[in-house]
Formats: sequence, structure tokens, C-alpha cells
Amino acid sequence: MRQSKLFLKTQREAPRDETAANAQLLIRANFIHKLMAGVYSFLPLGFKVKEKIIRIIREEMDKLGAEMIMPALHPKSVWEPTGRWKALSKVMYQFKDQTGREMGLGPTHEEVIAEIAKHVITSYQDLPIAVYQIQTKFRSEERPKSGLLRGREFTMKDLYSFHADDVSLEEFYDRVKESYQTVFKRCHLKSYVTEASGGDFSKYSHEFMVESPAGEDEILLCRLCGWAQNKEIAEGKAGGRCPKCGKGVLEKVSSIEVGNIFKLGTRFSEPVGLVFKDSRGATHQVIMASYGIGVERLIGTIVEEHHDERGIIWPESVAPARVHLLLIGEAAPALIKFTDRVYDDLVKAGVEVLYDDREGVSPGEKFADADLIGLPWRAVVSTKTVAADKVELKRRAETETTLVKPKEINAVIK
Amino acid sequence: MRQSKLFLKTQREAPRDETAANAQLLIRANFIHKLMAGVYSFLPLGFKVKEKIIRIIREEMDKLGAEMIMPALHPKSVWEPTGRWKALSKVMYQFKDQTGREMGLGPTHEEVIAEIAKHVITSYQDLPIAVYQIQTKFRSEERPKSGLLRGREFTMKDLYSFHADDVSLEEFYDRVKESYQTVFKRCHLKSYVTEASGGDFSKYSHEFMVESPAGEDEILLCRLCGWAQNKEIAEGKAGGRCPKCGKGVLEKVSSIEVGNIFKLGTRFSEPVGLVFKDSRGATHQVIMASYGIGVERLIGTIVEEHHDERGIIWPESVAPARVHLLLIGEAAPALIKFTDRVYDDLVKAGVEVLYDDREGVSPGEKFADADLIGLPWRAVVSTKTVAADKVELKRRAETETTLVKPKEINAVIK
Repeated sequence: MRQSKLFLKTQREAPRDETAANAQLLIRANFIHKLMAGVYSFLPLGFKVKEKIIRIIREEMDKLGAEMIMPALHPKSVWEPTGRWKALSKVMYQFKDQTGREMGLGPTHEEVIAEIAKHVITSYQDLPIAVYQIQTKFRSEERPKSGLLRGREFTMKDLYSFHADDVSLEEFYDRVKESYQTVFKRCHLKSYVTEASGGDFSKYSHEFMVESPAGEDEILLCRLCGWAQNKEIAEGKAGGRCPKCGKGVLEKVSSIEVGNIFKLGTRFSEPVGLVFKDSRGATHQVIMASYGIGVERLIGTIVEEHHDERGIIWPESVAPARVHLLLIGEAAPALIKFTDRVYDDLVKAGVEVLYDDREGVSPGEKFADADLIGLPWRAVVSTKTVAADKVELKRRAETETTLVKPKEINAVIK
Repeated sequence: MRQSKLFLKTQREAPRDETAANAQLLIRANFIHKLMAGVYSFLPLGFKVKEKIIRIIREEMDKLGAEMIMPALHPKSVWEPTGRWKALSKVMYQFKDQTGREMGLGPTHEEVIAEIAKHVITSYQDLPIAVYQIQTKFRSEERPKSGLLRGREFTMKDLYSFHADDVSLEEFYDRVKESYQTVFKRCHLKSYVTEASGGDFSKYSHEFMVESPAGEDEILLCRLCGWAQNKEIAEGKAGGRCPKCGKGVLEKVSSIEVGNIFKLGTRFSEPVGLVFKDSRGATHQVIMASYGIGVERLIGTIVEEHHDERGIIWPESVAPARVHLLLIGEAAPALIKFTDRVYDDLVKAGVEVLYDDREGVSPGEKFADADLIGLPWRAVVSTKTVAADKVELKRRAETETTLVKPKEINAVIK
């Protein structure tokens, strides 16, 4: 990617009403653009990060079920049998179209997937089964102020599973729990599986919490055994003994919820009429569960966890590119030729490179932009390095630089 | 993909109010599910087709600009400077949120991209530049009845280009025109570049039309030289001479608009205040153009063009898988073992296979489903073929079958 063609211009300042570090950095680095509170565009570099995260999620979810996609625009009728047209009226955008038809924008999809499942599931032989989507959700938030951590419009991965009995549900639920931990680990986030309110059909649901001062949630955490519980349902208290290991002392910790998993039982299959026939022909309600990961929130959390005063420090797995190649100093033909070749060779070798080929931009500005944008590696070409037929290589998070021949870059960054 | 795990069940009938062939076939084959008129879910097989088409579009668009993504939820304020909050009030879903804030769902993104471009484009050195997105659009349609050809919610690829002068615009516009023809060709559609109404800034815009009785548009077409014009602006008439080649006779032809490209001039940059400085420091308005392809409409058109009375006939490039592997007859262990091995070997060889591994389904039903689903190749394993250590291979569109050894499948379908 040539920076001059990337629809990219770093900003000196983020909008004044943007107080969250994740949004400030992502706006200044021009990964995102704010259209209104809680609603952002993803510019090319931000789009790349989103794609990287979606790929990680997809790779893990494909092991659990097939991907599909449901619409955002829902008729009122699909929300009525479960009573949620009313129950969710504060968070769901609801409106009438030009002919007076009542519609809403889906904040979640249990009703819709249950409706579809009625066509697909009829027999015990169809169970268990699971499907997921990565899709745009809408939630009306009065005054969102946490940047990507809480949006009015956001991308969500939601997985739904369908079971004939609790044994099958429990087995699958545990597999998803592990799968989620893999996703967050691959995104370089340390998450705690946290007990949370379980609704009508089970004692607990589970949230995946990342410790962060930017978090809107509070959990009780035992650092000794890793047990955690959402403060809303707190059975222990800060300073008390851990109810699990009996040894650790519980701490109250701010955290960000990056995912949640929820046993739904027959909460949705009953009102919707989602049933199956067992091997003897008897009819039962299907048991369901749903599992969510917010994609933008994940990006925001990664930025909250991985930045310094100069900018973002992307983990390799989700960085929009691995190497930021900077052409520094007066753009003399020999210098351009050398840098172009380094760029072409890296691209040919399959390395993702962002090439700062801009002319008339000072070295100081280019270095500051590279720090702000935060790719894992920086490769600098200047008159000095070219004289030695080398580039100056360093990690974003370190200060130490190495002079290496272009051909050696690949070996160093491996 | 094992059919038993795919959240797939073909339907005997499509909803009664669904009159379009594309929707009837796609619903019966369980590629899509209708939530309400003009609003569909894409089930796993439909999702695969959508992904294939998106990949084709993306490969061609990446040659023209960088990918990004803009939101669907827009504040009224972004639509006011251009006067389109009012002008588009019939097609845009507009509503107030719970606090009375006025919002709309974007039916297109000229206003939003121009607003973003103000941060990115300041100098002639930033031009020309282009960006695109593949994103969900919403348009209020009173009574959509053409299946995927006209949706209330649909995925659109929209590309926007920005130029300093008309020469740059014309050059890029022609490149996009070629690129679009490549996209449609890769989707196995024959499209005509058709002159259409041009708006304030140029005589014509251009639509890409596919001849089809299902089309809602009428064009005048010269089959001799390929010249075409939308009937709405008709300068010639049916039966008259072609104004381009002077030899052919114009025909009135129903057609589906699968794409359009439009020179916008300064229609949007002026009210939004999108300007750049030239090399002497003088300020000018940026010249814009926009270019759209409707993804679902493309899928619908492909189905309209490629089906017979038994079902869909997917072109290889967009098929959800290449081979439909059918296990036919009583599922004896030896038969299952053989078919499983054929499946595993094909998957290992990188061939996309849909494996009908369902038990207790009659051969007739499996054959009918395979015809309905319409993968390019069908490979049948039965007691008879296993005895010869072979599978029976045929193309969806042909009746002739060949008995081949499992190892030879790859060579035949290449």
C-alpha cells in the first residue's frame, strides 16, 4: 500500500467531544472517521484491521458452525411473539416506513434465527446444529462516549446453537467458551471468563472481560485462580476470599466486555414455535444458546491495551500491515529507486507493507505519523542508509535500530 | 461441507407472494429466507455465493482504489447541505431516535464520503484518488416484488473517485467502465453499456444492462454494434436505425440494471465545501464521480439467466461449491467409508464439495435437490459405482454421465 494512494491523512486532533483514548488515537491516525457519536466510518487502514479481526473470528467460528447473514431491517411482527418489541423499545430503533409499516433495526437476532430455524429443524436428526453471522447491529444509545467500545451501529459476530437436550447444550457451550478464549488470545488480549446474570434458564451466563480503566463494567476478580464475577450479581465482595479457590483475595476491577455467551433454554423457541420430533415422534421445544463478540469493541479494546503516548502499537496478528517503510529526506531519484525496490521485493515476498512515499513531508512528520499509526515494524530509507545499501529497521515498541540489507528484512521480522 | 451440518433444508414451495423466478428458486433451494418483502437472509449456501461475488468485485476494485466502509446510520445534518434529506425522503428510511434526534438509513453515500474527503483531500497532490466500500444500503420500496432484483435492504459496492480536472475524471471513468465489464463477464453475464440520464454535469451516465424478461428497465439496443440507450432518455426508437453504426435496427429489450456509473461534477463537493488547492495555491472544487454495483441484484440476475425447470445452474465462478457429492442408497458402512474418502480427498485437493451425507433420504429426493441447488458438477456414489471402485460424474447442465475413478475426478472437472 502506497500511503499517497490510501485516502489517509493523519489528524493533529480528535474531535473535542471524543474523550476515549481508543477513538482519539484511531481518529488521529485516520483509521476511523466519526459521523456522529457512536457511528464511525472505517477508512482503509481501519478497514484492514477490521478484516484481520474478522478473519480470526471466522477461522475459529468455522470450526463450530456455518456462516450465514441475516438482515438488519425487521418487521415488527417477528419481535412480537417474544414480547421484545416492547421490552427492547429503548434500545431498538423502531419506526414506520412511508406506508405506515412498523419496522425496527435489529439489536440482536434470536427472533429472526428462530424463525428461520423453523424451516430447517424438524427432527432430532437435525440437531445439534449451529450457525453464525458477522453482521451490522444497531442499538440506540443516548450519549455514547467510549469510542468504539459502545456504538449505535456496530459489527457483531453472533453464533446461535440449537440442541435436543441439556447435555448437548453444555458440551457445545464449553467448546464455544474455549473458542472465544482462543479468539481473544489471538487478538493479544487477556480475558477473564466472568460469571454474569443468567436469565430464566440457567444460573449464569458468561462474559469475557478484559481489565481496563476504560471499561464500563466492574468485576470481582481473583488473580490467583482467575475466577471472576460481574459486580451486578456479586456473591463475593472486594477484599473477601475467592469463593472458588478459597485462597485469593477478590479485587474490584474495571473491565471491558469483549464477548458473552448465554444459554437461552426455550425462551425463544417456545413463543416462536420452534420444535423437533424425537426418534419416537414426540414433539419437544428446541433448546437454544447465543454467543456474541463485538468487532469494533474488540478493536477499541486492543487500542486501549496497546498504545503509548505517541500512538498505537498494533499486535502483529491484527496490524493493518507489518512493516511501515519510510522514505526519508529529499526525494532524489536514486533514493526513490532504492526504496521502490525494497517495497516491491517485500510485497513480492508476501509481506504487508505500508510505504510512506509522500513527497514534501518532513522526516519528523513521517516519524510521528509512523508512531501514531503503529505498525509492528518500521524500515527507514535515507541517503545515509542507501550509501551503505541498507535500511534502518526497528520495532514500533522499541528504540533500538538495526541496519540491515534489504534482503535480510524478511529474516529479521520473521 | 457436509449437507447434514449446513443448516440447509430445501423447500417444496416458495412463499405465494414471491413471483420472481430468482427468489422462488433461491428460497426453494434454501439459499435465502424471506423475512419480509425485499428483505432476505442469506443461508450458508447463499452466503457462499455472495462471498464469491464479493471476491470478484473486490479483486477488480482493488485495482482502482482502497477499500473502506461507511455506516448506514446517518444524522440528518449530513444530508441537509445537498438538499437530499428532502429530495430523497420517499426512498430514505428517516426517523427519530428515542431522544428526538433525526436520523436516516443511507440509500447511498455521496454526502458521507464528501464529508470524509474534506479531511483527506486538501491539495492537488492528493488527487486523483478513489475509494470503495461493500456495504449495506436501505431503500424504502412500497411493494418490492422482484426478489433479489429490488430490495429494501441490500449490499452495494460503491466506488467514489475525486479529481482535479475533467481529463483525470474521463480517464478514470473509462477505466471503471472496463472494470465493470470484467466483473460482469466473470459472473457469466452479458451486459450492455447503456446511455442513461446524466444529470446536471454530463450528458449521459452509463448503466450496465443484462437482457432479461425479468428486468424492470427497457432499453433500445442495436445488436449489430452493441449500442444501447435507456428508454427513459430515448433519442432513437424501436425499429429505427442505430444512431451509432447507422446499420443495425434498434430493438426494445427488457433488461436488468446490474451497475451504473455517474459523473457527479461538483454537485456534491460544492454544497459540502470539498475543495483543493492547485500548485499555485488557488482553491477549486473537487470533481467527483460515483459507481455502483448491487450485489444481491447480481445474484438474482445470475439466477434469472442460469436456470432451467429443475433448478439453478450456477456458473463455476460464483457457485457455492464446485461438486455435489451424493451418497445414494442404503447407507452401508462400506458405502459410507468409500464416499467419506472421496470427500476427504477432494477437500484435501482444494476442491469445494457439498457432500449430501444425509441418511434416510431417497435417491429421487437427493437428485432433485442436487438439480435445484445447481452446483456445476455432480458426483454420485452408489453400491453399483463402489463395486467398480468408481463414481458417476456429470455436469449439472448435461445429461451424459461418466464413470471415473475417484482419483480422476480432479482431472475431469478441471
